[in-house]
Amino acid sequence: MTTLYIANKNYSSWSLRAWLLMTELGLPFEEKLIPFGDPTAWKAFRDEGGSGKVPALQDGSLHVWDSLAITDHLAERHSEVWPADPVARAWARSVCAEMHSGFPALREFCSMNIGVKVRLNSVPAELARDVERIAAIWLEGLNRFGGPFLAGDRFTAVDAFFAPVVFRFETYGLDRSPAMAEYIQHMLAQPGMQAWAEQALAEPWIEPRHEADCLQVGDIVDDFRSIETR
Amino acid sequence: MTTLYIANKNYSSWSLRAWLLMTELGLPFEEKLIPFGDPTAWKAFRDEGGSGKVPALQDGSLHVWDSLAITDHLAERHSEVWPADPVARAWARSVCAEMHSGFPALREFCSMNIGVKVRLNSVPAELARDVERIAAIWLEGLNRFGGPFLAGDRFTAVDAFFAPVVFRFETYGLDRSPAMAEYIQHMLAQPGMQAWAEQALAEPWIEPRHEADCLQVGDIVDDFRSIETR
Repeated sequence: MTTLYIANKNYSSWSLRAWLLMTELGLPFEEKLIPFGDPTAWKAFRDEGGSGKVPALQDGSLHVWDSLAITDHLAERHSEVWPADPVARAWARSVCAEMHSGFPALREFCSMNIGVKVRLNSVPAELARDVERIAAIWLEGLNRFGGPFLAGDRFTAVDAFFAPVVFRFETYGLDRSPAMAEYIQHMLAQPGMQAWAEQALAEPWIEPRHEADCLQVGDIVDDFRSIETR
Repeated sequence: MTTLYIANKNYSSWSLRAWLLMTELGLPFEEKLIPFGDPTAWKAFRDEGGSGKVPALQDGSLHVWDSLAITDHLAERHSEVWPADPVARAWARSVCAEMHSGFPALREFCSMNIGVKVRLNSVPAELARDVERIAAIWLEGLNRFGGPFLAGDRFTAVDAFFAPVVFRFETYGLDRSPAMAEYIQHMLAQPGMQAWAEQALAEPWIEPRHEADCLQVGDIVDDFRSIETR
């Protein structure tokens, strides 16, 4: 029995990575969603004795948390998690790790909020640098390994790791080259991305802290969520 | 031919992880150290066509950067990188990933600077929370897997990932329980830790930015480095 604990699909970028990886690769799991604003649900989750952090995977008796640890845990038994080609795999591991520990400005100013569109009033220099590095990584992968995914012709962990960035590009209307736009469209057309976005928009929760995160350098100009927020 | 690119041993906590892992496990490599304050050396490194980031491993034709990517790259061929026990391995993967992406206050206020002692004037609340989480992780590992290393009776990647924290506890005199003190002493006695620290103290470089990082909430009260800094 494999259970994946996640938080709100609209906001939780780290949850998306693990969920999307398992979904796109067809690895079976039961989903348990713990809403950010529900302290009772979080207490129950912590009382189960795990880390109390999401995403977390309960895989039989093994408890693994963090999107990258879950990825490498799954890779032990599912070779399709990483690219088969050693060069592509070394590159994919490297850029996933770089994404995992870096890009603080992108996280701060472009918090994931799938259901809205934000017009940025300014692009702080550190955000511009993060976006420039994303562009360099994507173009390197697409050019070296031939696309349409970042490390070649099938979905692997590296696409899961940049999936939240795909949604952020859409929410914040970040500048993109034609090759980047093509990758974004290709990702948004994947069944797992479509299912996640649809479920995000249907969620009944508005989280004040996450909403405020979006407004640091921009204004919400559109809202596609089911719930009445204004 | 395997080459590990690192930066200053006195300051580069991410370099330490990869170097220490390979050294303690006896994996052969040639070391290339690129000093932070040497733009010519960095340009030459970037001109070799890699990522331009350290630590980086050139493993034959494969280029891998980031301490966690290097760890999992090595684990493909060296099963001793992670604990053999599946429970310990799942835990070790999780806390390494948590360390890799988290602990921003520990990084900000307790920048690695092996050659000095700093007296903290205050302990910001977010630093106290990070230290508390470190304590919980170490005690959990030592209790569950029996010590003297974090995931059992031999050195694995999880010890490499927390090695910079060991040096930080020493530099900043952070509070520790007896069990934590015992782990710190055990780690400081490892040959790789001793060699790294000795080489750090012998370095001829003082880096103004890293020195300033140490002084945000404290004062340097002792300096064991060979170079004259005052």
